[in-house]
Amino acid sequence: MANRRETVAMVGAGQLARMSWQAAISLDLGLVCLGAPGAAAVLAGADLVEGSGYDPDALRALAARGDVLTFEHELVDLDAIRAMEEAGVTVRPSSTVLALAVDKLHQRRTLSSWGLEVPAFAEAPDPGAVQAFAQQHGSPVVLKAVSGGYDGRGVWMCSSQWEITAAFEDAAAGGLELYVEEAVELAGEAAIMVARSPSGSVAVYPLVATRQVDGMCREVVLGAEMAVTTEVAAAEIAVSLARRVGLEGLMAVELFVTGSGRVLVNELALRAHNTGHIHTEAAVTSQFEQHLRAVLDLPLGDSSPVVLAAAMVNIVGTADGSDPAERRAEALAVPGAHVHLYGKAARPGRKLGHVTVCADTTERALERARAAADRLEGNG
Amino acid sequence: MANRRETVAMVGAGQLARMSWQAAISLDLGLVCLGAPGAAAVLAGADLVEGSGYDPDALRALAARGDVLTFEHELVDLDAIRAMEEAGVTVRPSSTVLALAVDKLHQRRTLSSWGLEVPAFAEAPDPGAVQAFAQQHGSPVVLKAVSGGYDGRGVWMCSSQWEITAAFEDAAAGGLELYVEEAVELAGEAAIMVARSPSGSVAVYPLVATRQVDGMCREVVLGAEMAVTTEVAAAEIAVSLARRVGLEGLMAVELFVTGSGRVLVNELALRAHNTGHIHTEAAVTSQFEQHLRAVLDLPLGDSSPVVLAAAMVNIVGTADGSDPAERRAEALAVPGAHVHLYGKAARPGRKLGHVTVCADTTERALERARAAADRLEGNG
Repeated sequence: MANRRETVAMVGAGQLARMSWQAAISLDLGLVCLGAPGAAAVLAGADLVEGSGYDPDALRALAARGDVLTFEHELVDLDAIRAMEEAGVTVRPSSTVLALAVDKLHQRRTLSSWGLEVPAFAEAPDPGAVQAFAQQHGSPVVLKAVSGGYDGRGVWMCSSQWEITAAFEDAAAGGLELYVEEAVELAGEAAIMVARSPSGSVAVYPLVATRQVDGMCREVVLGAEMAVTTEVAAAEIAVSLARRVGLEGLMAVELFVTGSGRVLVNELALRAHNTGHIHTEAAVTSQFEQHLRAVLDLPLGDSSPVVLAAAMVNIVGTADGSDPAERRAEALAVPGAHVHLYGKAARPGRKLGHVTVCADTTERALERARAAADRLEGNG
Repeated sequence: MANRRETVAMVGAGQLARMSWQAAISLDLGLVCLGAPGAAAVLAGADLVEGSGYDPDALRALAARGDVLTFEHELVDLDAIRAMEEAGVTVRPSSTVLALAVDKLHQRRTLSSWGLEVPAFAEAPDPGAVQAFAQQHGSPVVLKAVSGGYDGRGVWMCSSQWEITAAFEDAAAGGLELYVEEAVELAGEAAIMVARSPSGSVAVYPLVATRQVDGMCREVVLGAEMAVTTEVAAAEIAVSLARRVGLEGLMAVELFVTGSGRVLVNELALRAHNTGHIHTEAAVTSQFEQHLRAVLDLPLGDSSPVVLAAAMVNIVGTADGSDPAERRAEALAVPGAHVHLYGKAARPGRKLGHVTVCADTTERALERARAAADRLEGNG
């Protein structure tokens, strides 16, 4: 009460902000979020500035409440962020770095220009350009929103002219610009989390295997069997990218791994990320505490694993709209289940929580995490 | 927002309630505390009912806000709690169990009557009774407040008639009743945490070694070398006591270990306890989550350790009254330091936070935890 606490201002007030607030409590840091009353972080006690990331006034009001401005998502007015930086607001990551996450086509171009392997891609101003791309790179192709997409929204897998036309209609209705890329034949997907502080230290987390369903992350496994070359390649990509972009904060690098062991960069997120939830229990320092440390230029925490294996499974709203919290007791009966419920209103397809289980083997961890998640979703 | 969350009503709003709230956020449970605005738990976002545990009206207002009434401390009007139980309020632990913690002389008598080894003790209505006790059991003796003491307050080590008289004067000034016990020759102190749910399941944590300074817990070590017989004896005492008292919730058992390996019960706490902070990082389930699970009769969590060794060191307010949060960055530079700051106003001798470090050996864990604590206290 006496001293004003060092405070992080965060664009967004969802589950990532909520878990950031849990980390902030331990360090006695303040957290003020941008969002709506009743948002997940606000229910947990984080301070709120009401508004949207597209509203320059709300962004300014938020920044005025903190020592540093950072992000839970990239649905923001980048011009407003730039103007605030010019006016002297500390923004981490900077607007230049954040632009990579806001504009996915810009991200692809930048990564490609730096010599990183990415899927073949092109602008997609119209269906004709997509068909020309498909003739060169094969079908199916993936159409993606240049900005504004998340959790599978803004992604269309297209095998036919009809699907391409439909995707453009969808996109036009949502006011979305598109680009196209090849559908890479995957052996698997993986992700790696890295933090870099303004003073230049870097902490990289262990590589995790990920499984997506309908474009949304559903399962993450730590300790899965992956070629050592893949782990090394992923860590090198993450660390070199963190330095190259001048990262100040946290970055998730989602990766495609091919059957021949090629590692392609699928997508960057410049913030805490669903694929990093597992580190709350599986690593010394959670991604949320690491994010706070990084943007406040505090010493970074140890990112090494504390367990041999772990698995994280998301809780997604079911068709009946029922609240997983009603089935909390059943999930907690699963040995070692770390249940995280976000306090969000249950809606079909919405991420409502996750479960992490640590174990001696990935099989046992995944089996238990799935069992707890199934119970929370009412399928157990 | 839609459904009312299952809510725990907790007497007290200090650091134990604050850390309980962090655990409650993960499980999407509500927590309403009894205390003052600006208390540690309230700053973290827990709901507040203003008032004291000695105020029956405040207790009733608190209980009305939760599904179960439980405790962060035992500074309560036990008669009021009993009356509420009779009126149908769910109180866990029950007033009968809580009475053991409220009245230390009653605790000693009960444990002794159950055949548990405790230090020799007697009522101490006046200095004459204490001198008679000292003649029988040797000097020094320990005078203790029957109720209302904590963190070394309400404890007087007496070697002379002068000290005995002074203790009685102190006690009379504070309105405290006293009892006397022998000063056991210790090889060391230890503590063990146990949870029992209303449906009867029990989870016991690993035994930890503790070090007190001026009656206040300063250091806790997990994985310290102790005789296997001591560990077994401690676990047996904890589990049998939990069953015998009909525990519903959490219990800390503080133990004296003598050079010959005798294990005496020093004191019970019927709640989360300083000696259990270490389990937040060192065990699968923190004591705070375990407490919530137990009092809501949810399945108990796994209480087994996840590391070989760990150490917890308290941060205590220094004479200059400076805020350890100002030295947060220095502490976070210690590898593996888990820093917990309670957001309390800094005052000399007040518990303001703690640091836990996990490591391969107790020596390394303790060295690092002390280093981080020293930095926070400005001695590093």
